[in-house]
Amino acid sequence: MNFVQRLQTIQRRNNSLLCIGLDTDLARIPKFLQKYSNPQYEFNRRIIDETKDLVCAYKLNLAFYETIGEDGWSTVHRTLDYIPKEIVTIGDGKRGDISSSAEWQARLFYEDWNFSASTVSPYMGRDSIEPFIRRNDRCAFVLAVTSNKGSKDFQYLKVGGKLLYEHVVRKAIEWNAKKNIGLVAGATHPKDLHRIRSLAPEMPILVPGIGAQRGNLEAAVRYGCDKNGELAIINVGRSVIYTSTDEDFAEKAREAATDYRDQINRHREKYFEREKLNA
Amino acid sequence: MNFVQRLQTIQRRNNSLLCIGLDTDLARIPKFLQKYSNPQYEFNRRIIDETKDLVCAYKLNLAFYETIGEDGWSTVHRTLDYIPKEIVTIGDGKRGDISSSAEWQARLFYEDWNFSASTVSPYMGRDSIEPFIRRNDRCAFVLAVTSNKGSKDFQYLKVGGKLLYEHVVRKAIEWNAKKNIGLVAGATHPKDLHRIRSLAPEMPILVPGIGAQRGNLEAAVRYGCDKNGELAIINVGRSVIYTSTDEDFAEKAREAATDYRDQINRHREKYFEREKLNA
Repeated sequence: MNFVQRLQTIQRRNNSLLCIGLDTDLARIPKFLQKYSNPQYEFNRRIIDETKDLVCAYKLNLAFYETIGEDGWSTVHRTLDYIPKEIVTIGDGKRGDISSSAEWQARLFYEDWNFSASTVSPYMGRDSIEPFIRRNDRCAFVLAVTSNKGSKDFQYLKVGGKLLYEHVVRKAIEWNAKKNIGLVAGATHPKDLHRIRSLAPEMPILVPGIGAQRGNLEAAVRYGCDKNGELAIINVGRSVIYTSTDEDFAEKAREAATDYRDQINRHREKYFEREKLNA
Repeated sequence: MNFVQRLQTIQRRNNSLLCIGLDTDLARIPKFLQKYSNPQYEFNRRIIDETKDLVCAYKLNLAFYETIGEDGWSTVHRTLDYIPKEIVTIGDGKRGDISSSAEWQARLFYEDWNFSASTVSPYMGRDSIEPFIRRNDRCAFVLAVTSNKGSKDFQYLKVGGKLLYEHVVRKAIEWNAKKNIGLVAGATHPKDLHRIRSLAPEMPILVPGIGAQRGNLEAAVRYGCDKNGELAIINVGRSVIYTSTDEDFAEKAREAATDYRDQINRHREKYFEREKLNA
């Protein structure tokens, strides 16, 4: 099963485009978890238990794990082992490098940790991401328009009448022989997300920026999805996982995740033909 | 002492612009080191012992350490602890992210590991690198023109009559209020290195691509240096550290490093006023 098929399968099975960002900050998790030998893993485990039927994917931003020191590496490993195999896992590291280094990066993400997808930065060009797109069961999401304010600094520069991010999208399409490249387009830029979906009608699009970053959820669904109302992966991090700092944090996360999933599905009902979703 | 002063001090003291890339690949290091509990650290330790008087900096590409698993994190830590404090250390990770994640990245590089500098990718813009330029004793080297083939894919796009990398350089100059931003410009692109030095006459420039990547050493020195023949950091990795796979590997690395340092200094003699170097 290639990556796109796998994504479609879980999106249909769980009837969900929601991705939960496990950006687990030790300073923000409930205090009572500190009694466990690995509080970060314990937090993740409980969030996964409560939400695994509500999501199509989990995304781990590696910055939150690397900083923990030696344990961080194995927390990533254990968390991925704990996630049911049918759910997509995204290693968010914005990697990419000269090929001798990128080989090792891809090996870390896809072999050692066993993520099903990763995020990569386009600036260094094709050979810098090539090791991330060698396997057709793994997907590399290329940054196109990011959700942060600094996205304006370069991504919107005009290059021959087009914006830089459009060139990135066009190159990503050109490199997509194995159908295992996706794009990152922030929900904070609905117009550009729309443009990107029209340029790449069949690619998975990872849509960050919902919740703490105040992206537009309706637009994320309307413009992020393919023609069947699928293949958008709508990431929500902090506003799901940090809903409570008490013993009930995982149940509260479930409530928040349910609410996001349902809101997303209402928007899908509005803009897409639902009968196709159960095809 | 800010970063630029620190770099100047060690470049003058060791009379060297050479940076050794400790991209220590377990598959390429001498077999006899496998008997040590941490062969990667043992390799680094011996290379440092033999070369610390010949360099201004060591650069560690994190890809080679992350992949090792839990031990990789502490190998970076132990290697940095072992490097004499006056030598610049560069954490080469091409990082940068939305600010909540970049905060953690910068903390890892500058606080936990204690690198004196890092490499960052410009695509996500100012706020994605801001945590890396908060301390004026630490430097963020922004990718301008990279040494790989893929550099042609985006870095040379024409934006309003200028190349994309020139926009990156101009932004980096604009953001350089604390004088702690540097640039990455590959020795495989001498003309562009020249252009970048003329745009940024006073910034440190990290010049990769010498050795295995066949960059032009004379041009790296001639165009990478500031007007005093300083502030270029010429990185050489594989063609110094993998000169021998026998017991004598560190001595052989010393010979190769000496040769590179001397070649660099001969080019400095040719193109710059040497009396200023000892000012």
